[in-house]
This record gives sequence, structure tokens and C-alpha cells, in this order.
Amino acid sequence: MSIYKKVGIVMGSDNDYEIMVEAAKALREFDINFEMTVASAHRSPERAGTWARTARDRGLCTIIAGAGAAAHLAGVLAAETTLPVIAVPIDATALHGLDALLAMVQMPAGIPVATMAVGKAGARNAGLFAVQMLAVEDEELAARLSAFRKKMAHEVEAKAARLDARLKQDGLC
Amino acid sequence: MSIYKKVGIVMGSDNDYEIMVEAAKALREFDINFEMTVASAHRSPERAGTWARTARDRGLCTIIAGAGAAAHLAGVLAAETTLPVIAVPIDATALHGLDALLAMVQMPAGIPVATMAVGKAGARNAGLFAVQMLAVEDEELAARLSAFRKKMAHEVEAKAARLDARLKQDGLC
Amino acid sequence: MSIYKKVGIVMGSDNDYEIMVEAAKALREFDINFEMTVASAHRSPERAGTWARTARDRGLCTIIAGAGAAAHLAGVLAAETTLPVIAVPIDATALHGLDALLAMVQMPAGIPVATMAVGKAGARNAGLFAVQMLAVEDEELAARLSAFRKKMAHEVEAKAARLDARLKQDGLC
Amino acid sequence: MSIYKKVGIVMGSDNDYEIMVEAAKALREFDINFEMTVASAHRSPERAGTWARTARDRGLCTIIAGAGAAAHLAGVLAAETTLPVIAVPIDATALHGLDALLAMVQMPAGIPVATMAVGKAGARNAGLFAVQMLAVEDEELAARLSAFRKKMAHEVEAKAARLDARLKQDGLC
Amino acid sequence: MSIYKKVGIVMGSDNDYEIMVEAAKALREFDINFEMTVASAHRSPERAGTWARTARDRGLCTIIAGAGAAAHLAGVLAAETTLPVIAVPIDATALHGLDALLAMVQMPAGIPVATMAVGKAGARNAGLFAVQMLAVEDEELAARLSAFRKKMAHEVEAKAARLDARLKQDGLC
Amino acid sequence: MSIYKKVGIVMGSDNDYEIMVEAAKALREFDINFEMTVASAHRSPERAGTWARTARDRGLCTIIAGAGAAAHLAGVLAAETTLPVIAVPIDATALHGLDALLAMVQMPAGIPVATMAVGKAGARNAGLFAVQMLAVEDEELAARLSAFRKKMAHEVEAKAARLDARLKQDGLC
Amino acid sequence: MSIYKKVGIVMGSDNDYEIMVEAAKALREFDINFEMTVASAHRSPERAGTWARTARDRGLCTIIAGAGAAAHLAGVLAAETTLPVIAVPIDATALHGLDALLAMVQMPAGIPVATMAVGKAGARNAGLFAVQMLAVEDEELAARLSAFRKKMAHEVEAKAARLDARLKQDGLC
Amino acid sequence: MSIYKKVGIVMGSDNDYEIMVEAAKALREFDINFEMTVASAHRSPERAGTWARTARDRGLCTIIAGAGAAAHLAGVLAAETTLPVIAVPIDATALHGLDALLAMVQMPAGIPVATMAVGKAGARNAGLFAVQMLAVEDEELAARLSAFRKKMAHEVEAKAARLDARLKQDGLC
Repeated sequence: MSIYKKVGIVMGSDNDYEIMVEAAKALREFDINFEMTVASAHRSPERAGTWARTARDRGLCTIIAGAGAAAHLAGVLAAETTLPVIAVPIDATALHGLDALLAMVQMPAGIPVATMAVGKAGARNAGLFAVQMLAVEDEELAARLSAFRKKMAHEVEAKAARLDARLKQDGLC
Repeated sequence: MSIYKKVGIVMGSDNDYEIMVEAAKALREFDINFEMTVASAHRSPERAGTWARTARDRGLCTIIAGAGAAAHLAGVLAAETTLPVIAVPIDATALHGLDALLAMVQMPAGIPVATMAVGKAGARNAGLFAVQMLAVEDEELAARLSAFRKKMAHEVEAKAARLDARLKQDGLC
Repeated sequence: MSIYKKVGIVMGSDNDYEIMVEAAKALREFDINFEMTVASAHRSPERAGTWARTARDRGLCTIIAGAGAAAHLAGVLAAETTLPVIAVPIDATALHGLDALLAMVQMPAGIPVATMAVGKAGARNAGLFAVQMLAVEDEELAARLSAFRKKMAHEVEAKAARLDARLKQDGLC
Repeated sequence: MSIYKKVGIVMGSDNDYEIMVEAAKALREFDINFEMTVASAHRSPERAGTWARTARDRGLCTIIAGAGAAAHLAGVLAAETTLPVIAVPIDATALHGLDALLAMVQMPAGIPVATMAVGKAGARNAGLFAVQMLAVEDEELAARLSAFRKKMAHEVEAKAARLDARLKQDGLC
Repeated sequence: MSIYKKVGIVMGSDNDYEIMVEAAKALREFDINFEMTVASAHRSPERAGTWARTARDRGLCTIIAGAGAAAHLAGVLAAETTLPVIAVPIDATALHGLDALLAMVQMPAGIPVATMAVGKAGARNAGLFAVQMLAVEDEELAARLSAFRKKMAHEVEAKAARLDARLKQDGLC
Repeated sequence: MSIYKKVGIVMGSDNDYEIMVEAAKALREFDINFEMTVASAHRSPERAGTWARTARDRGLCTIIAGAGAAAHLAGVLAAETTLPVIAVPIDATALHGLDALLAMVQMPAGIPVATMAVGKAGARNAGLFAVQMLAVEDEELAARLSAFRKKMAHEVEAKAARLDARLKQDGLC
Repeated sequence: MSIYKKVGIVMGSDNDYEIMVEAAKALREFDINFEMTVASAHRSPERAGTWARTARDRGLCTIIAGAGAAAHLAGVLAAETTLPVIAVPIDATALHGLDALLAMVQMPAGIPVATMAVGKAGARNAGLFAVQMLAVEDEELAARLSAFRKKMAHEVEAKAARLDARLKQDGLC
Repeated sequence: MSIYKKVGIVMGSDNDYEIMVEAAKALREFDINFEMTVASAHRSPERAGTWARTARDRGLCTIIAGAGAAAHLAGVLAAETTLPVIAVPIDATALHGLDALLAMVQMPAGIPVATMAVGKAGARNAGLFAVQMLAVEDEELAARLSAFRKKMAHEVEAKAARLDARLKQDGLC
């Protein structure tokens, strides 16, 4: 069992689970605990507000909020806590996530929200960003992050190595 | 003094006054009372929530909310009241109000927000829309709206009449 | 049978039925009567104009207009009646509803149109917004809306409760 | 005095005059008569409709319509006449004419509107397009258009010739 | 056999045929002759230029040009003829036709191009616009256009009539 | 003198100083030390890389990176350190910061960048976000943040109180 | 075996292979050698930097870089070499390549990147552009390019010839 | 006097001079000769075509083309020569250069155009890109480019050094 503080993951709708689980997986890779829930800024404002206001006392160190459309969730939570809030815009409408992105990233001065990319990449990076925050003062975790980075770099090399086979298959070398 | 219910006008920042006063002026033209205040969804969430939750009991019949950037105000108020909420996106960032527009209009199913155009035209129309709502069951007010519409049509004719002079001045007829 | 006034739902093409029926369903949930028709601002301007001009006398209290592409329907109807007009932009072209959204929401000062989100969420919210307008002076309907809001909040809690099962299934807790 | 049929120029607001006068000037350069008026699709729908329905009988051969914001004017006129309608989107809102452009160009099948560029270039081209339509069966006018094209080409050459002076002035040759 | 002049339809690639045939069908409905070809502004500039320069002498009265991506075809043809050129932007890239639309509609002053909607609706309207141009001085064709408009209006009514059945099927009336 | 770790602020060009100084001011308000420098991902890649690679060892706890245009700075730094990197898109081109925003926020999975709003609001929020990160484990700082939030809420109330005077001045109450 | 210098093709992820192989195919058509690899600006910055810094010494004459999302690859390589760098934006996110396009094309003054179209057309053109660069001083290659252009023009004619069959099949001539 | 081949700079209008002179200045810094002219794809297609077709024989090694609006110039020139063509989109309309950018960068497969950033940065980079092309086989020029890059890096350092003074002036250190 991890000794780290817990990260809170919240999504506006359970339709967002397939996206937001990427944040959870990233945290799990680094043995960071998390709690995950659904809370809509619009359909359950009281729940969302209470969840945010009690987040620090529940031992959360940061909040990851994913939502689509007019995605107010991250901003609404950020207004109710001084914990860092990370936002994941979700492509849930005809406008392909541009609505959620702008509704999250363009926060007015005073209440910051840290926005990630639209969709799964953003959710995974939200998890990794939380790990990086925890690693600032945790040398062991920082070392694991460095190892993780090296592994990614090696995977790039491995992919590069496999290109030749594909080029041969396509008759290009 | 008017016998109509009151409209609530709220803006996210007093920087929005020059825009939102257009809503007030439209209401005044039809002798509709209003109250106007500043409440930020992000900087003063409690104030915004309380204002919305008590709006019906304070005798408000509709709420007009203007905000810029990641404009959550209208959605946040709409989540706390079943009164109709009209949104006015304000051009307050480098993205020229497209952020506020999408953050307001793309509300998820369940909590409607009625969005107007970006800026002064939208604010004026928010006021007029409130008048039109009140006029549904008020024949006298409906008659005043019809007269207002006729006056606008006449003004178009008057503008058309003045075009000839401009064309002559430009040597085009 | 309902004692409430009727809502008019109009769409630019019967291709829009699957979207616009969401408005009808929302009204039915609150026992609000409606009439639904097809009227194109472009292909049947006379029909659209007549329908709007007679709307108040036919007992309509508000109009919900859905259209795609250069969506002029809501604006054209709004120009012919002082009833409130609610617009639902529909994703019907390569531009994914951005065209319909801007063609509806950016109405010039004088003739308001209350725009909802693109697509089904917008259509459902158009119906709910009409209910909210009717509930301003109808305490019983307002109470039903409050109950509806509570039910939505409970559904959010139920969804949250089911998340644990999904996390277990994904081996994440 | 010209023997050609007349072109109708209509704008949604007299604020659009400085833009739309470019269409008039282009017509004048080719001695084409025009009538110019203001008619708002929203503020004066009856006037706009009547103007369009009687356009053919008044001897108009084509209609040039300029409007900004949710620019319905061209589509509304096109729905009421089988004369060709040319649209000029005007940059009149925070969205810089993108709203007017999409509201004009994305007309649904059945009612065509021929859209030009946003602003003055579009207005001038609307006038020139009307001239080109008239020149299809008018060899003398076609010859004048060819001469106009040659003149434009010569002006390009003249501008090119003046570049050297500017380069010298900037110490670049 | 038709006595009308011929319309030229040209597309940048035969991939565009399924879109551009809509223009041909519209012309056929009104017994207007057409010639249809492929000419790329980029891959076959000489062919495109020659085709445009000889268009008037070949008896064409107008040109309909469809293209996708950086759609230069319409502008390139328009630069080589004084015949009216109608442009149809085609959704052929990741940017969903916004690229083709802007590359066609934003023509600089001097060389007009009349742009229609992106895709099939635009292609059909291009054909209809050509018919409307021919009908300016052809009362019989104008009458057929009026009948066509009436038929469209009747179809709208027929669609409206069928809505009730769908509502019953969905249990909504 | 503060006992907190230091925040690094880096900008792509000294033209960005007026924007990025807002981050510095926010840090100063909470007595957080910072170092500020210029390092361009493109014009000085070695400097940028070295700065990022040594950041943790220099005692930085987080990095705030502001850049305009194809804003690669934040991503380039994030690739070289496991410290949290906060990005501030700057409106520095004809595309009004949309280029910088997308170039920063759309980071691929693996290397997170936490993006703030375009411009001054984003820079100030970047500073505040850094404070919030430091306050996760620092109760005194968390308390100061709570006080700061309360002060913002009071300022909203003060602004609201001043609205009446403006309404009177405008003759609206 | 070719006597020309080699072109380097690099992509941010092997997911981009299907797109980027189009560049390789174009080079092969002109017997230009290439090397192809994977190097991520973010996941393997050292690899990317080293690859770029040694590119000239390895005999590369130009670099083609394809990437999606916040596509920094081309800019990062360009910062490390004075060889010409050609960028291919890839549609890899919900924003359909607009993010990659702006992240590549909007390079600040000093470090040029030559951007092609989003996707396969862009990748093929990147290869052809490299050929055109090599052909500046190579008359034989220039002649082959001219022949290639003529072949494209003939293909356009062949496609045009086949249109008649399609029109007959559709009953349109 | 330089021994290098000449670069051709062409702009669609002399209004573009202030932008395009940046390309000339960049070439001058490296003693590359250039010729500069005005040629409009639309207003002077013959001139533009002839200029491009004869470019190679006139000793040009590459072409830099700047244009705004529906910017066809680069594509039109590229279709007429196998020399490399570099495009500079210019912000000349209400759409702020997005139109020119898409009209240039989205070239279909077969005819490449290398697009730079919108405006002055793009023009300067077009010149620098031409220098980089010439430097591929010219070691002395490559060395000068390397020195130029070093100078840019030093300027960044100098700017960084001056930041402290500004922070002191603002009372921030």
C-alpha cells in the first residue's frame, strides 16, 4: 500500500469513464492512491461543491476533473478548494472538444485550472502531472519518473528499429 | 412603478458593466424592474450560489448572466435555480468571446441556459427576451412589444430614406 | 390532460426529427402540450411566417426551432412574433454545427433568439427551458422541476456508486 | 443613361453603407443602374419580403445583400424571389465576420445564395459579379469587362515597377 | 433538346464526382445543357486555363467549379474568363472543407467568385443558381423556377403531415 | 526571506515580459521566491535544455513557461525535466494566441504540460497554481491562500455595491 | 543506386507510419535515398536532438518531420540543424490536425520550418518538395520532375475522359 | 557581389511590401541576390504564369510568394515551375490570415508549397529557409548560418541578462 497522499479523480458523467480511467492507470503505475467519482457541476452542484470543499481534509493532494461540452466542472471545483485542479477536456459534442477545452483553459485570473489535452492523452497526462507534483519533494518517486522517461525513450528506439521491416514489406528498401 | 416581477442581472466582473447595462436599458424601456449585481462563479462561488438559490423567493422571474473567458456564471446559476437563465457571452480575452460563447451555449442536457449573441447586442437581446417572456401572459406588454417592433421597422424605413443623400454625396446617383 | 399552454416545436427538415423529438420528450415529462411541425425558412417561407404570426393566437406560449446549416429558421420566426423563440442548432453539414450555432446565436439587437447547445442536448434543454418559463408563475410546476433536479442529482450519485465496479473490473482497485 | 436592367443593393443596417457602397461603385464603373436600400430580415421582415417578392417586377436582374452577425438577409430574400441573390458577409461582431460568412454561405439545398468575401472586397466583387452576369449575353459589356481586366493587369505591372524604388529606399538594392 | 446556353461544370479531381453530379442533376431538372470535365488548377494548369479562356466561345454561360483542400480552381478559372464562376467547396481533408471554403470565398477585389455551401447542398445550389441566372431574362424558365419553389414548399407540408405518425410511434401524442 | 522552494519562470522572448511578470507578482504576493529568465526553444535550444535539466538541482520546484506562436517552449522543457511545467500561451501573432494555446495544451501522452489561459490572466494563474502546489503540504500557505480567496470574494461584493452608483449615473434607477 | 544525397524522414510515433510512408514513396519514385526513423521531441528529446545535430554529417540534405497533436518535432529539429526542415502535420487528435498545423507552421522568426498540408497529401508533397530542392542544380532530376508534372496533367485528361461514362450511367447525358 | 543563385520574391499586391521585405532583408544578411516583383494570381494571371515558367531560366533557385485572402499565388506559381515555392500567408482580411494560411498550406498531393507563418515572422523565415536550401551544398554559407544561429542564442542570453533590471524596476527583486 502506498504512503503517498491520494489524488481525486472526478468526471462530469460516467460516459467519461473510458477517458478518465487513463488518469487512474497512470497513477497506479506509480502506486499513487486515488479516489474516483462522478459529480456534475450542473446536475449535482451541491455534491460537486461539497466534494471539493472537503477534498483537502479527506487527504487529497490534487484533483483531476474531466468533463465535456460547456465543461464547468474543473472551474467549479477550483473555486471551492485551494488544492491544485487539473482539467481534462473531453470530446463529447459536435464541436469535438473545442468547447470543453476553451471552457476549461480560459479561466479568469484568480482561480487557476491546469488544462491538459483533449481526451485520453490528456487524462493520462493529468495522472502523470499529479505524479510529477508529488515527486517534487519525493526523491524516490522522482527517480521512478526518470526511469519511466527513459523507458519511453527506449520504446521510441524500439519502434524506430521496427520501421525497417515495414519499409521492406512496402518494398521501399 | 411597474407591477411586473423583477429581472435579475448579474455579471462576473464590474468590467462587464458597459455591456450588461444594455440589458438594463432594454428592461427600463418596458418598465420592467431589475436588480443588478456582480457575482463571480469562480471568485465568489458562495455569493453566486446563494444569489441564485434565493432568486425565486426574492421575486425574480428570470436571470440574465453576463461573463467572459471560461464563462461559467450562467451555468453555475442555472444549476442552483429552476428560474430561466439567459446568458450573455462577453468578449474579454484574446479569443474574442468564442471562449465565453462555447462555455455558455454548450450546456449538457438537464440544465438549460439560453444564450444570446456575444457583447452588447446579446445583452440588449437578453433584456428584450426577458420582456418577451413576461409578455406571454400579459397582453398589454405584448402590445407594447408589437409597437416596439413596428417602431424598429419604421426606423429601417427612415434609414433607407436617408441612403439617397449618402449616395448623392458620394456621387453615385 | 394538461392545463398549461402549448409549446410549438418546429424544425427546418424532417431529417431533424431524431434531434428535435428530445424537446418533445422533455415537455411530455412535465405534461406540457406541444405541437410539432416542419417549416423551412428557405423552402417554405410563407408557411414559416404564417405559422409564427399566428402562434400566439393559436395558444402557443413559446417556440422551439431546430435547424442546421445556415440556420435562419429561429431568427425568421422570431422576427414574426413576440413570443420567446428558443433555437437548437443541428449538426447537419461538414462544419459540424458551428455554422448553425453562429447563424442562430449571433442575432442582432432587437430580435432575441435564445440558443441552446448543438444537437440532442440542446433539443432536450430547449424543452426544459420552456418548462422553466412556464414554471415561473406556476408553483406546482416549479416544484416538479425541483424534484426533477433532485432526481438528476441522485442519478449522479448512483453513477458514482457504480464506478467502483468498473475500477475493479479494470483491476484498478 | 444605361439600358441595362437594374441591380438591387440591400443592406441590413445603414451601418453597412461604407462596405456596401463598394458594390454600387463597381456597378457605376460599368454604367449599371442600381437601387439601394436598407431592409432588415429581423427588424423589418415584411419590408424585406415585399422588396424581394416585387424585385423582378421592378426590373431588378439581381440582388446584392450585405449583412453582419447572424446574417439572414440574403437567405430570406432568396427564399422570396427566383432572382439570383449575391451575399456580402460583414464584419460587425466580435467574431470578425465568420458568423456572417457561415450564416450566408451554408445555405441548404434548394435556395442558393452566392457568397462573396467578408467586407469591402466582397462588396466590390458582388458588384463585379453582377456585371459579369449581365455581360453573359452582352458583348459590349463583356468587352468592357475584358478591358477592365487588362487594366488591372497593367496596374499590377505598374506596382511592380515601383518596387525598385522602395527597395532602394530601404537600402536593399 | 434545350435551347439554353450551356453551363460548364469542372472539378479538381474525379473524386469530386459524387458531389458535383448534384449540380448536373439540378441543371437537368430544368433542361439546361452542361458540359462536365476534370481540370486541376495545380496538376493541369494549362488545361484549366485554356478551358476557362475558351469557355465563352464554346457557348458556356457560366462555370461551376468544385474543389477541395487549398481549392484554387474557381479563382484560377475566374482569373481567365469574365463569365460568372460559381464555386463549390468540397470536404476533402482533415479540416472538413473549411480550407476549401476560405480558399474560395475570400477572393480579393477584382475577380469575383460566387461561393456556395460545402458539399452536396452547395453543388445542387450551384446548379440552381445557374438556372436562376438564365431565368433572369427567360420568363418561361422563371415560371418553372417558381413552380419548383412551390413544389418544395408543398414537400415541406407533406413532411409536416407525416410527423404525427412518428410522434405516435414514439408514444408522444 | 522565504523558506519555500523557488519557482522558475521562463519566457521565449523578452517581448513576453509584460505578460509573464504577472506570474512573478502572484508569487511575490505569497513570498515565494522565483528566478526568471529568457530561453527560446528554437533560438537557444541548448540553453533551454540545460536550464530544464538542471532545474531540480538548482532547487526549483516547478517551472512556468510562457511563449507565443508555435509555442514549443513548455513542451521542450517538460521533455527535459520531471518537474511540473505550467504553460502560458501568449497572443503574439495574427492568430491571437490560438496557435500558442493549441501548441501547448495538446501535448501527447507521456509528457504533461499544465496549460493556463492565453495572456495575463493565464500568467497570473500560473503563479497562483504554483502557490497552490506548494500549499498542498504547507498549512500556513494554504491558510494564506484561503484568505486570498476570501479577499477576492469581498472585492466582488465591493464591486457589486458600487454598481448602484453607476446605474444612477446612467439614469437607470 | 542513386547518387543523390539522402533525405531524412522522421516521425513522432510509429502510428504516423501510414502517413509518412507517402513521403518515402515520393522519394523512391525519383530514386532519392532516404533514411526513416522515429524520434519524439517529447519522449526522446536527446535522440531527436542528436539525430538532428548529426544529420548534415550523415549526408542528409533535408529533413522531413511528421507529427500530430502539439507537434513540436519539426521545430525542435530545426533548432538543432541548419538543414532545411519540412513539416507534415498529422491528424491525431479530436482537433483534426488543426493543432499540429498551427504548432508547426507558426514558427517564430529565426528558425524556419516549411509546412505542408495535414496528412497524406502533405507527406507526399514533403517528399516531392525535397525532390524539387535537389533538382534546383540537377538538370536531369529537373527533367524528370517536368515529365512527372506532364504525366499528372495527362492523368487529369484521362479522368476527364472517363466522366462521360459516369454521366451516362447516372442517366445525365 | 554574391556568387549565389538568385531568389525570386513575389507578392500579390504592393500592400504586402512591408511584410515581404522581411524576406529580402534576410537574404541580404547572407548576401543572397534576389529579384522582387508584384504578380497577382487573379488580377494578372498571365504575368504570374510567365514569371513562374521562366523562373528557372532566369537563374532563380527558389520562389518566395506572399499573399493574403484566398491566397492562390503560391499554388499557382508552383503549378508552373518545378522550382521550390515557399509561401507566406498575409493577414489582409477580417479573418486574420487564417484564410491565407489554409489557402496556401492545404495544397493537394502533387504540387508542394512550403508554407511559413502568417506575417512578418513568416516572411523572414521564408528568406532564411531559402538560405538554408542554398547552404545544403555550400559549406561556407552553412558556416555563416551556424554563426547566425549562435548569435541568436547569444541575444537570448543578453535579453535574459536584462530581465533583472526590469524586475528591479517593477519592485520584484
